[in-house]
Amino acid sequence: MKIALAQLNYTIGDFAGNSAKIINAIEQARTNGASLIVFSELAVCGYPPDDLLDYPHFIKHCEDALIEIAKATIGITAIVGCPVINSHPKGRRLYNAACVLSNGVHIDSIYKTLLPTYDVFSEARYFQSNENFRTVAINGVNTAITICEDLWDEMDFFSYTQDPLKNLSVFKPELIINISASPFNADKEKTRYEILRNQAINFKMPLLYVNQVGAHTDLIFDGNSLFINADGSIAKQLKSFDEELTYVDLNSVQMKSNFEEKERIEQLHKALVFGIKDYFSKMGFTKAILGSSGGIDSAVVQALMSEAIGGENVTAILMPSQFSSDGSITDALALSKNLNNPSHIIPIKSIFDSFDAALKPIFNNLPFNVAEENIQARSRAVLLMAYSNKLGAILVNTSNKSEMSVGYTTLYGDMCGSISVIGDVYKTDVFALAKRINANRELIPIDIIEKAPSAELRPDQKDSDNLPPYDILDGILKSYIEEQLSVSDIVALGYEKETVERSIKMVNNNEYKRFQAPPILRVSSKAYGRGRVIPLVAKFKN
Amino acid sequence: MKIALAQLNYTIGDFAGNSAKIINAIEQARTNGASLIVFSELAVCGYPPDDLLDYPHFIKHCEDALIEIAKATIGITAIVGCPVINSHPKGRRLYNAACVLSNGVHIDSIYKTLLPTYDVFSEARYFQSNENFRTVAINGVNTAITICEDLWDEMDFFSYTQDPLKNLSVFKPELIINISASPFNADKEKTRYEILRNQAINFKMPLLYVNQVGAHTDLIFDGNSLFINADGSIAKQLKSFDEELTYVDLNSVQMKSNFEEKERIEQLHKALVFGIKDYFSKMGFTKAILGSSGGIDSAVVQALMSEAIGGENVTAILMPSQFSSDGSITDALALSKNLNNPSHIIPIKSIFDSFDAALKPIFNNLPFNVAEENIQARSRAVLLMAYSNKLGAILVNTSNKSEMSVGYTTLYGDMCGSISVIGDVYKTDVFALAKRINANRELIPIDIIEKAPSAELRPDQKDSDNLPPYDILDGILKSYIEEQLSVSDIVALGYEKETVERSIKMVNNNEYKRFQAPPILRVSSKAYGRGRVIPLVAKFKN
Repeated sequence: MKIALAQLNYTIGDFAGNSAKIINAIEQARTNGASLIVFSELAVCGYPPDDLLDYPHFIKHCEDALIEIAKATIGITAIVGCPVINSHPKGRRLYNAACVLSNGVHIDSIYKTLLPTYDVFSEARYFQSNENFRTVAINGVNTAITICEDLWDEMDFFSYTQDPLKNLSVFKPELIINISASPFNADKEKTRYEILRNQAINFKMPLLYVNQVGAHTDLIFDGNSLFINADGSIAKQLKSFDEELTYVDLNSVQMKSNFEEKERIEQLHKALVFGIKDYFSKMGFTKAILGSSGGIDSAVVQALMSEAIGGENVTAILMPSQFSSDGSITDALALSKNLNNPSHIIPIKSIFDSFDAALKPIFNNLPFNVAEENIQARSRAVLLMAYSNKLGAILVNTSNKSEMSVGYTTLYGDMCGSISVIGDVYKTDVFALAKRINANRELIPIDIIEKAPSAELRPDQKDSDNLPPYDILDGILKSYIEEQLSVSDIVALGYEKETVERSIKMVNNNEYKRFQAPPILRVSSKAYGRGRVIPLVAKFKN
Repeated sequence: MKIALAQLNYTIGDFAGNSAKIINAIEQARTNGASLIVFSELAVCGYPPDDLLDYPHFIKHCEDALIEIAKATIGITAIVGCPVINSHPKGRRLYNAACVLSNGVHIDSIYKTLLPTYDVFSEARYFQSNENFRTVAINGVNTAITICEDLWDEMDFFSYTQDPLKNLSVFKPELIINISASPFNADKEKTRYEILRNQAINFKMPLLYVNQVGAHTDLIFDGNSLFINADGSIAKQLKSFDEELTYVDLNSVQMKSNFEEKERIEQLHKALVFGIKDYFSKMGFTKAILGSSGGIDSAVVQALMSEAIGGENVTAILMPSQFSSDGSITDALALSKNLNNPSHIIPIKSIFDSFDAALKPIFNNLPFNVAEENIQARSRAVLLMAYSNKLGAILVNTSNKSEMSVGYTTLYGDMCGSISVIGDVYKTDVFALAKRINANRELIPIDIIEKAPSAELRPDQKDSDNLPPYDILDGILKSYIEEQLSVSDIVALGYEKETVERSIKMVNNNEYKRFQAPPILRVSSKAYGRGRVIPLVAKFKN
């Protein structure tokens, strides 16, 4: 049996577009002699549809699309992910299903058993869990069809009470198919392969895994679909961050290669560029702007943006204040030149002075403090948003994860933006990204990378005045955010107690800022945003 | 058996404070001769703890607190809500438990079966569901202990596959206890009573229901704990929006009264004031500021704030532009005077002009449009936040649900604030609240209520230039947001198709603004915020 793996990029709720893509792939696969084509999880509506699943007419659209797609399956079988209604009067209203379409008809549906409900996932919010296990004969091949998490019965932090493959194995299947929507994170690629490999080895069967590719606001799906041999070796690996329609023939001798782990910063770089590109393309945006401070964060974002949507489409706005160093302006201008970005300089001194004058009757002679620092950051945001409103370019946010963590950012100031590009990238990784961006040519002026980080909101300010060195801070943050360690756990790793306590206190005290942050491209196992819900009014502090 | 119902206000993660409250209530109950005291769901840590449950040391604090509380139960039994660890190697790591503490020892735990995972609830994210049903003998009374949702097996939109009370009824209990954390919404009070009443009647048993009281950022818990007789009549109803420790004696003849539904706007009013008060008190805030425009939204918020934290603690900032009418300033000043609010006038013309001048080289002679409108709204936000940063008063947001829905608000402008007071209140209800606030005395100048709503961001602007009349708009919005109806469903209710399509399009196109909105006090069945997750990048438009 020749099988097509369709790793496609869907848009959530774009039923016409998604169906056209799916039908086109079915036609290509048939032309190429495939008798089965496999699409990813919830392909018909795109994953994750979130609360659109609560709208009955959204489900009606799914049903209608599925009928249209089925009509295209003359002479071929397709496995397509789609929500389907639970006809039983009890239980959640929907199943997350793998629909088997063949010769024009929707002949079968297999339901997802393990419904991930942690981090960015909330499938128990919508779906009923499958409890009836059976295999499906597809062109005479007894097949165990599973959906994404169904193969992830052993999590790091808990074991599911069900093991779908074990339940299916009693029916003696010959092939495992897994349709998936498994988001990227820079530390996950190997884990994912190992889980799939172990299932293939344990159950002594080849495993065909089709993952979604595409970014949906914060969530980036990398593709990397696989066909794994029964001995765990890789017969086929599809592209990262791109669509691909490819084929395997179950009757042929398969290739056998080992998994090759890609370099982490390279993956991070590709994921971010892809995340930006897909966000802009799906939103129909072509032009971006950002505040270009001459610092490393905005420089890295500017370079990533330029790579994603073209340098000529990224406008850099330099907004020096009386505290900006000449170096910052020179560096930022050189950066824009290197990246081919249009740029404008808008000094903010007169704006700052007008706020200062307006507030003087109230503030009297109270000393300069964070209020005046924030007026600068917020005046810049007003200028950037005015530019965006007037000229249609989309403001992107340039905050990094370290400063978002400790609140070293101004709410409604530098925290503004339609999407946050590096809000899930710690400062130490921002430096690594800068080096990678400069690998072939000095796109980011070396001064920007080498000078001491500073917000330049008061005279001679340096990040190190208030924060621990970034290598130490990032280590503490990662232990706290990603690994949920306590102060004493983190101190046991070798960090100074006072530094740990101070850092974690800053994280806890700044939940309120992150609550109003833009969506953040997720590239770690625990990003700020939908995957991390911390009460704002809470006294728990370590 | 004399039973104490402890309806208390907990702070999430405040183990010392919550334990002290619980132990104090136990001591009072013992002094008053009670042999059982019942606390609400997750009382030890406060509800909802959200992802703090992912932190192992948070759970350790829960365990330690429970041991301390148990020590206080000499001569009395207490039922206390607390997360407990699932000792089985399979399944989620925690149970949502009702812990039975007696004579110094934690003697038993009953686990929650139905884990609400919809709207603002996400319990399947943390907890394993109970599958073993049994009753507990408490001082010789065979008791069916249940936790909140366990009695809500029939939802409007689905039925759970389990019916805990039915499973428990085979053990012939004599009493149902339900410990709860059931949030307020203005349309729910009667539904909640009816569900509880029906369970009492169906199973022919008295039902003792203890709900949490207190606000946790967006979520407001109203208390209203109940003791319901086996015939469904009410033997005892505890206060709304306040703590209460009260008693029932199972051996005495019970009162029998009917449920009296409270007036909706009255409830809304009380809930909002309580929500503000508890937010400020738990955050340790005492002073607030807001932008006072002379419009009805800021006027109603100003009045609610003054009621909640005292007029002298609410500073009104008037920030007229060249488009502000004289009436607006006069009205706003009169309002502040009525409410005893300190006020300041900061004209924004010179600030606006400085932005205008700074942008002129880029904008050239492009006509005045939304960019300049937003500069005004955002300049006001910069001023308000500067005041907040300098003088420590907390900015509260004054957007209403109608304008939040259609995006008739400026992101980083009037959408700023630490908490949104009326972001879940449609404009028509804002008018009703204004009338209620003025019931005894004209606190809100009548002009503010009667003049045509306007953002005053350009000459002669009126809300009605861009929006349908609010009674029509709100009807459409409620059908779409709260009831998930489609365009054709809503048209079938009698609304004009073009108006419905235009309104819903505005809602869909403005998800991105709401994504960055402050937390919103939730008073409806579907508020913006955690209970409504809509993809930002999506093509589904009706």
